[in-house]
Amino acid sequence: MTEKTLAELNACGKEDFVAALGNIFEYSPWIAEEAAASRPFSGIRQLFAAMCKVVEDAAPGRRLALIKVHPDLADKTKRGDLLTAESNAEQNSVGLDRLSEAEYAAFDRVNTAYKEKFGFPYIVCARRQTRDSILRDFERRLPSDPTTEVANSIAEILRIAALRVDLLVDGDDRLRVHGRLSTHVLDTHSGRPAAGIAVELTELSDLGASRVIARAITNQDGRTDVPLIGGRPVPIGRYELTFSTASYFAAKSVPLSDPPFLDVIPLRFSVSDPEGHLHVPLLVTPWSYATYRGS
Amino acid sequence: MTEKTLAELNACGKEDFVAALGNIFEYSPWIAEEAAASRPFSGIRQLFAAMCKVVEDAAPGRRLALIKVHPDLADKTKRGDLLTAESNAEQNSVGLDRLSEAEYAAFDRVNTAYKEKFGFPYIVCARRQTRDSILRDFERRLPSDPTTEVANSIAEILRIAALRVDLLVDGDDRLRVHGRLSTHVLDTHSGRPAAGIAVELTELSDLGASRVIARAITNQDGRTDVPLIGGRPVPIGRYELTFSTASYFAAKSVPLSDPPFLDVIPLRFSVSDPEGHLHVPLLVTPWSYATYRGS
Amino acid sequence: MTEKTLAELNACGKEDFVAALGNIFEYSPWIAEEAAASRPFSGIRQLFAAMCKVVEDAAPGRRLALIKVHPDLADKTKRGDLLTAESNAEQNSVGLDRLSEAEYAAFDRVNTAYKEKFGFPYIVCARRQTRDSILRDFERRLPSDPTTEVANSIAEILRIAALRVDLLVDGDDRLRVHGRLSTHVLDTHSGRPAAGIAVELTELSDLGASRVIARAITNQDGRTDVPLIGGRPVPIGRYELTFSTASYFAAKSVPLSDPPFLDVIPLRFSVSDPEGHLHVPLLVTPWSYATYRGS
Amino acid sequence: MTEKTLAELNACGKEDFVAALGNIFEYSPWIAEEAAASRPFSGIRQLFAAMCKVVEDAAPGRRLALIKVHPDLADKTKRGDLLTAESNAEQNSVGLDRLSEAEYAAFDRVNTAYKEKFGFPYIVCARRQTRDSILRDFERRLPSDPTTEVANSIAEILRIAALRVDLLVDGDDRLRVHGRLSTHVLDTHSGRPAAGIAVELTELSDLGASRVIARAITNQDGRTDVPLIGGRPVPIGRYELTFSTASYFAAKSVPLSDPPFLDVIPLRFSVSDPEGHLHVPLLVTPWSYATYRGS
Repeated sequence: MTEKTLAELNACGKEDFVAALGNIFEYSPWIAEEAAASRPFSGIRQLFAAMCKVVEDAAPGRRLALIKVHPDLADKTKRGDLLTAESNAEQNSVGLDRLSEAEYAAFDRVNTAYKEKFGFPYIVCARRQTRDSILRDFERRLPSDPTTEVANSIAEILRIAALRVDLLVDGDDRLRVHGRLSTHVLDTHSGRPAAGIAVELTELSDLGASRVIARAITNQDGRTDVPLIGGRPVPIGRYELTFSTASYFAAKSVPLSDPPFLDVIPLRFSVSDPEGHLHVPLLVTPWSYATYRGS
Repeated sequence: MTEKTLAELNACGKEDFVAALGNIFEYSPWIAEEAAASRPFSGIRQLFAAMCKVVEDAAPGRRLALIKVHPDLADKTKRGDLLTAESNAEQNSVGLDRLSEAEYAAFDRVNTAYKEKFGFPYIVCARRQTRDSILRDFERRLPSDPTTEVANSIAEILRIAALRVDLLVDGDDRLRVHGRLSTHVLDTHSGRPAAGIAVELTELSDLGASRVIARAITNQDGRTDVPLIGGRPVPIGRYELTFSTASYFAAKSVPLSDPPFLDVIPLRFSVSDPEGHLHVPLLVTPWSYATYRGS
Repeated sequence: MTEKTLAELNACGKEDFVAALGNIFEYSPWIAEEAAASRPFSGIRQLFAAMCKVVEDAAPGRRLALIKVHPDLADKTKRGDLLTAESNAEQNSVGLDRLSEAEYAAFDRVNTAYKEKFGFPYIVCARRQTRDSILRDFERRLPSDPTTEVANSIAEILRIAALRVDLLVDGDDRLRVHGRLSTHVLDTHSGRPAAGIAVELTELSDLGASRVIARAITNQDGRTDVPLIGGRPVPIGRYELTFSTASYFAAKSVPLSDPPFLDVIPLRFSVSDPEGHLHVPLLVTPWSYATYRGS
Repeated sequence: MTEKTLAELNACGKEDFVAALGNIFEYSPWIAEEAAASRPFSGIRQLFAAMCKVVEDAAPGRRLALIKVHPDLADKTKRGDLLTAESNAEQNSVGLDRLSEAEYAAFDRVNTAYKEKFGFPYIVCARRQTRDSILRDFERRLPSDPTTEVANSIAEILRIAALRVDLLVDGDDRLRVHGRLSTHVLDTHSGRPAAGIAVELTELSDLGASRVIARAITNQDGRTDVPLIGGRPVPIGRYELTFSTASYFAAKSVPLSDPPFLDVIPLRFSVSDPEGHLHVPLLVTPWSYATYRGS
């Protein structure tokens, strides 16, 4: 599917509308079909609201069917062939196609246990999660009752749909589906932004391998040229941000101990709000540093 | 050897004096023998100074012989049998008896390369070092010229001797051979020392496994009951100190995000002065923290 | 009266005991007289507890009489002549003998209003207060009912008595009547305690003139040789602590802007617990600083 | 004079050009006249550079004459009548029309001493200064030699001219004559920007009265809606920025001591670069705070 403008979607025939938005909800073009009747939409938010209303107003059986057509998370047997292109990309975004054996086993256990208890697959909006947070979410949801889990599943389906709408429909009033993770290094030894500091962001994992997901060098403002994470949800999870400060101060001929008291400084923190703006700055001298949750 | 008081060492016969202090310098009782003539000593520092003077005044050949009788670092073939009890304990203190294969290979390479170049073994005061810092020290010293290395070796031998004197001779004016590493947690959310925080100190290693060397729970003053390292040199090297702050704040019913923004906070720093007092405090709220090199 | 040891007070005749402690409670030697019967005391705390019990057990009329014999605060007409030496010294400690006209008027208003309402003078333990905090305390207590104010007055009388006991009786188990205010300057630009910083402590006043109450130069540990306030209660009130940091950094040839971004740094804070240990440190570079309530 | 666009100034007749820009340099329309020949200008910077070049290329006598036509600073006898409107406004901006007697005497002393020594008036770009910094600048310049002071005076005249060009000529490529002073309050107790904090900026004066020059309430981002100083140079001088934090925390029902440990927090700092961006943030809990020079 290619990106359409809201104007095009308002003007086109119903068939084209459904062709364009049929996969916003996994294997469920009926939602686009019913929403088409509410055209024209004054904005993307109205379009998305109309689709949400179709889901909300659907009979319980149809809602359950919507849930059931979703694929299992990290199901190797369906990779490539049987997933929609959207599902494939979303699951890959969180690294579900590169799981360690231990992680794969854990995900498999999740799916099986959940499906056995509720009769439908465990659904989560993968782009808002890390592998660790999905396992944590599962542990929280498995003890729930079926009614709660139907509600949770629909909520996650709407989150998935919102991100798909954001990718497919072009317009001014974007849905609030993107967060941002940024940093800033202030050299309080010289009273200036710290330029040229190597920064590295690692997604931490309890079960599998931690992986570096962003690298940057701070610019003249002590910031990175682009956010560490931006233009997408910031996945719920644990992160470590490291700053190579000793080489920075050494390059400025600041006297250091040998070995330097502080060298590569790690800040370890968690993200809990994927759509929020999280700013994690570093105030640093060769002998001290501070950080805080900024916005 | 058992601990003696300075009074005993001043009063005893020369043979007993040499028996007591003969191993202060590895396999070199002649140093104690010559120093015995300077008795009585008004203090431990005078005793140690007298022994240092014997080494200093010795003919070059005798100084070189002193160097040559020292064992190789981490020489597995000599473990137990051929090392003095003192050497054995000292090398074990830094974990030289528990090296990984990669570390053992690195140490072996050090010794061989150094010995081939200089004709005498690489000597370092192991109690003041970590495995990583020994390899770093070696890399710094290998390019030296022989005269410099004789001087470096003698300097290290005197450091070893000072620590042995400190262990063996009891008296008021202790040699300055001990450092201290301490911490303190200040809860700036409530304006009080943070009691009950789990603290863990890990010695970091590039080549081998990092290992936890101290665990403690902060007391009512936000301090540990005893220093993290005390009563001995603080080995040169890299360390990580972690503080379990989320569980502390959760126990006090302070509102936290889920997952908590800060959970286990790591402070990574290096020690460069084994005889110094290094204080690494943490000022912390659920949303911010700061640290600095204190004293 | 001169200082006595507890042993002397336990051993002496009743008359001497009363002569020694008769003024612990203003013009009320009967309290010492009755407490004498409980001798010997195992410690100063037991002695003070016995005197408190006499007050506690006294009939309401006698308690009221005890309150009524207290002088008015800052009553110029009674200065020197009609106050006990103890009252005089205590009132002077808080500067009640050096009030501005506005302050004198305010204190006069306090006393008159309070006495008119309750029929006895406003009593407060002056050594635990500043002029401002006394006026604030008065404003809080004036709306009370008589029963509460009798209780408040007795509580203040016991605080006054405890400080007098602490001055007059020598022994190991001192009463907990002393607080401490200390500071510490950490130069996080060089990673060392800041030695040679001029520190000044001012008691702030809303109504009268603020006055400098301590001056010091930090020593090699970045501390003052003696606490800013120690060996006595730290008066409740507002304070400003200033640190001359620009001249310190200039003397170390650290590059500064012209004029220096930070020159004399003020920390403004309040004391609420006169018997507590309050530590107000400064972490400072030429471009940044931090402080916190320590202990 | 009214604002003109660069296009208008490029297109108009020479007389109109001089009429528009004749007062850019005090009583010296010849500079505009000569600069007119370089038209058209591709931008405001080129226009200003052309005027600077006229001054630079002028014969020494003419440069001296340019200096001599400038009015005395703070000369009460010339107020209103004899100053150009520009001079009047500029001098008033720094409060030179509201001097205390002590300040007026100091300024008078400056002018007289300087004029006696050099034979021309002391010139400084008043919009870049506070009253205190002018007196400091004078003290620095009075010991100079005449050649240096001619150069200093011309430099100040160019700064005055740049600000007048910026006011009079409209265009895209503004001269870099504006600085900015901003703040930001981060509540590290709750991990959020502190909204609703009363902020007050005072210009400090050694000689005269300090005066409040900005008041604001922080918004949802913990910032002020407009910079504390913006759209003009930030005058060199000393400032105090206060933050009413106790009332903020009390309103959020955060437990505080009585009186609150921190109430109105003062940050005292100096501005040295009027065209720079100076950011002075506050990170604060009820028990701690930190600030730093940001940008």
